[in-house]
Amino acid sequence: MKRIGKQTLEFSTPPKIESHGAIGGKKEAEGPLSADFDQTFQDTSLQTESWEKAEAQLQKEAVALALAKAGVKPQEVDFIFAGDLLNQCISSTFGLLDYNIPFLGQYGACSTMAQTLLMASVLVDCGAANRAAAVTSSHFCSAERQFRTPLEYGAQRTPTAQWTATAAGCALVGQRGAVEVRRGLAGKIVDLGVKDPANMGAAMAPAAADSIFQFLQDTGTKPEDYDCIYTGDLGQVGTDLLYRTLQENSLDISSRHQDCGLLLFDREKQDVHAGGSGCGCSASVLCGHILNRMEAGGLKNILFCATGALMSPTSSQQGESIPGVCHILQLKRGA
Amino acid sequence: MKRIGKQTLEFSTPPKIESHGAIGGKKEAEGPLSADFDQTFQDTSLQTESWEKAEAQLQKEAVALALAKAGVKPQEVDFIFAGDLLNQCISSTFGLLDYNIPFLGQYGACSTMAQTLLMASVLVDCGAANRAAAVTSSHFCSAERQFRTPLEYGAQRTPTAQWTATAAGCALVGQRGAVEVRRGLAGKIVDLGVKDPANMGAAMAPAAADSIFQFLQDTGTKPEDYDCIYTGDLGQVGTDLLYRTLQENSLDISSRHQDCGLLLFDREKQDVHAGGSGCGCSASVLCGHILNRMEAGGLKNILFCATGALMSPTSSQQGESIPGVCHILQLKRGA
Repeated sequence: MKRIGKQTLEFSTPPKIESHGAIGGKKEAEGPLSADFDQTFQDTSLQTESWEKAEAQLQKEAVALALAKAGVKPQEVDFIFAGDLLNQCISSTFGLLDYNIPFLGQYGACSTMAQTLLMASVLVDCGAANRAAAVTSSHFCSAERQFRTPLEYGAQRTPTAQWTATAAGCALVGQRGAVEVRRGLAGKIVDLGVKDPANMGAAMAPAAADSIFQFLQDTGTKPEDYDCIYTGDLGQVGTDLLYRTLQENSLDISSRHQDCGLLLFDREKQDVHAGGSGCGCSASVLCGHILNRMEAGGLKNILFCATGALMSPTSSQQGESIPGVCHILQLKRGA
Repeated sequence: MKRIGKQTLEFSTPPKIESHGAIGGKKEAEGPLSADFDQTFQDTSLQTESWEKAEAQLQKEAVALALAKAGVKPQEVDFIFAGDLLNQCISSTFGLLDYNIPFLGQYGACSTMAQTLLMASVLVDCGAANRAAAVTSSHFCSAERQFRTPLEYGAQRTPTAQWTATAAGCALVGQRGAVEVRRGLAGKIVDLGVKDPANMGAAMAPAAADSIFQFLQDTGTKPEDYDCIYTGDLGQVGTDLLYRTLQENSLDISSRHQDCGLLLFDREKQDVHAGGSGCGCSASVLCGHILNRMEAGGLKNILFCATGALMSPTSSQQGESIPGVCHILQLKRGA
């Protein structure tokens, strides 16, 4: 592994995506990416007794799917990197408890899929792991009651609000597979002072701009060098701000850009306001839609840039702004 | 880096502790390790307007101290690994925001110091980083109101309860320094069904036993090979259980063992019940007391085994048990 430029890592023996599992809930199954999920649940509770337990179950199922698709047993996975939005990351703890895999909890808010995949790739590349898993989840109902209001209140949502995906994604990183992790970048905490917790896209866009700009600088590449630059869950508001911010640096990514939060739902028909969000949004789009297309050969070289809003209800109530972070991975189909 | 045994990593060019900073609050300054802190605060609010902001300030100061002691600028640190107990790890976000260092949030509850140090060491060993920082914190007042009851209620505490340290520790991992990180182990999530959130020591002891047993097996070493085996914050109840659990495997560590939660406070005089706890407990004991003694030469070869209880108030209220995790680092004074 070597460092290139200021912030980018280049893997010397690129770790490979051995398999991937994508899980979605009812609304996700009704969306445009329906066919890309390995499994969807019509019952949002997943037959558990609380939304939190349902979310843990999403993560458990995503790992089970990734393991089954690769024909790998839990004891053949050396590390699992996982995190989620719930207080103290309990979806990860309780979802992964039974697997008995050495566990390193990650907190990157909605950037968690990129962060866990980056850590798994580093450990595989340097020989610390033969195989490592990266997984994250989110659940609309557990997120609403923790971050906003309990669903029973029937609160109105603002037009800038995004819809937390009920979804999970797991990627297994190892020695074989068509898709390689070529480079990675860990983002800085970027804070331009946005304070509206109903506008996460605006809070995260500056971090996306910062990390994408730095990655292109470090690697000496242009947006046109990639089939697609996927951001995590900026939604429509954050996407517009990302374009404007990058244009101030004479960078136009609009012709090569897609946002997972805009891909997951049909905004015309599904009442999700500015788009999808939550750790499970970019995780399930990566581990379903994107990796399916890379393995089928339609996509060859992409950037996956997941963004996270590093806030809590307490910090917002205490008047703090909402800093963002964006981690990036370059995925490439092997020769 | 190579894997030895089932779970242990051995560093090939051992990363070194370049510097370390330990911060404590008023009660910590009154305890037996008083002289080991680089800085202590008599004002528990650290002149901020909330306990959460005070905790963020602890983390900020710990990093500032570690940087200053090494004569290193923030831009010379390639990654910072940080986490804490507050919902969505906001002490880390707001404490580290201004440093502008690529940020990878970690969640390991009270095991966070070991987890961040393990990640920083892996990245330095494999060349992904020239220098990386590991930091964590806890604050008695922010933890009490989030996990238990607001202080104003004056609730009684049970004899098994521990006292969350108001403290932070930061270690800078790089190329120079007397103390080396030789080996590391990431723990599994271990759950023996303890459900009492006022008895974290009992909840974490099985994880400590599991990781310590595995590390000694993997490395073919005995407790007597180490000057000391430090656990994070088991307190008196957890320590007793750890001894009993290991004795069932014919392993007696009692003559070589110390617990950071028992070192930090004087249980006779300081009314901390079963001992200290919180991410800042083992972090400040490592980054003050232990590393000071290793650099002075009194300690040459130790294990640092920080434990975490992977629960939230929500999971406990929903009847879930409290799983634990324990990550281990072997630190050795260089020749």
